[in-house]
Amino acid sequence: MHLEQGCIQVYTGNGKGKTTASLGLALRAVGRGLKVCVFQFIKGGGRYGEHLAAEKLAPLLTIIQTGRPGWVNTKDITEDRRTAQDALVQARELLVSGEYDLFVCDEINGAVGFGLIDVEQVLELMRLKPEKTELVLTGRNAHQLVIDAADLVTEMVEIKHYYKAGVPARTGIEM
Amino acid sequence: MHLEQGCIQVYTGNGKGKTTASLGLALRAVGRGLKVCVFQFIKGGGRYGEHLAAEKLAPLLTIIQTGRPGWVNTKDITEDRRTAQDALVQARELLVSGEYDLFVCDEINGAVGFGLIDVEQVLELMRLKPEKTELVLTGRNAHQLVIDAADLVTEMVEIKHYYKAGVPARTGIEM
Repeated sequence: MHLEQGCIQVYTGNGKGKTTASLGLALRAVGRGLKVCVFQFIKGGGRYGEHLAAEKLAPLLTIIQTGRPGWVNTKDITEDRRTAQDALVQARELLVSGEYDLFVCDEINGAVGFGLIDVEQVLELMRLKPEKTELVLTGRNAHQLVIDAADLVTEMVEIKHYYKAGVPARTGIEM
Repeated sequence: MHLEQGCIQVYTGNGKGKTTASLGLALRAVGRGLKVCVFQFIKGGGRYGEHLAAEKLAPLLTIIQTGRPGWVNTKDITEDRRTAQDALVQARELLVSGEYDLFVCDEINGAVGFGLIDVEQVLELMRLKPEKTELVLTGRNAHQLVIDAADLVTEMVEIKHYYKAGVPARTGIEM
């Protein structure tokens, strides 16, 4: 099956749950036989649980990781920007192919925030979305122009986070 | 593998993304070989995409639906409360068994809001949580006592929702 109508969803804010919400959407869509691509920006730092689980849901679920290992070099973004720009070309090709019913651009808002991708490029991606493809954009500090152009926006607000109590990122929960 | 330490996470608020965030956590955990139970309250209305996908991730992922078909009868909650109370007994047994690394009580906050479950019963569930089990509670209007007792709380705030533009619940996205 395919969607009758595809919308654009944005998950932003400083709270936990943005990437996981997009992964939950992916799980639900796969259950219905929809084809899903989760395209991750600035997440080159090794395989997480979702990447391992995706193998069990192939070929309906594809997760593509892009980004340099480690975190963005905020002192000199040259290399991170080049990596993100290359990733953006790939994401655009996959999106416009119309092959996917659900297409997630994970952390694309973060990539914009770091100056690795221009907001105009995200807006172009939103315009290029095939009619029956659902597009999901995640990452904190979504640009106001992205919010304006989206159909659904949820802000994940951190009320309380256990990292402040010293709980480290845990395998199977955060990664 | 198992978690070294289990926390309690709450996803609340009026925005889209609470159940899907818990499903994304489930997907990630399953990828790491953790055993997951998603126990759904007041969701007896037929199988969603996540239930179909769970079959592909068995035996690591179990999703249990409870609730009467249709929505809660707010004019007379007698039968819905009985159903929810029975479900709570089952959820408590599964949680305390320690068999699951990640245990999600989906929509339990909603069940409290409707008067089907007492907040003291949720607090008891939180106290009974095995040390190495991660417990996730979802649903809007989480009770302040639940928020106080949790380790992590994210409020999903609706900034914009497409249902207001007339987009209906879509198979593969909302269900």
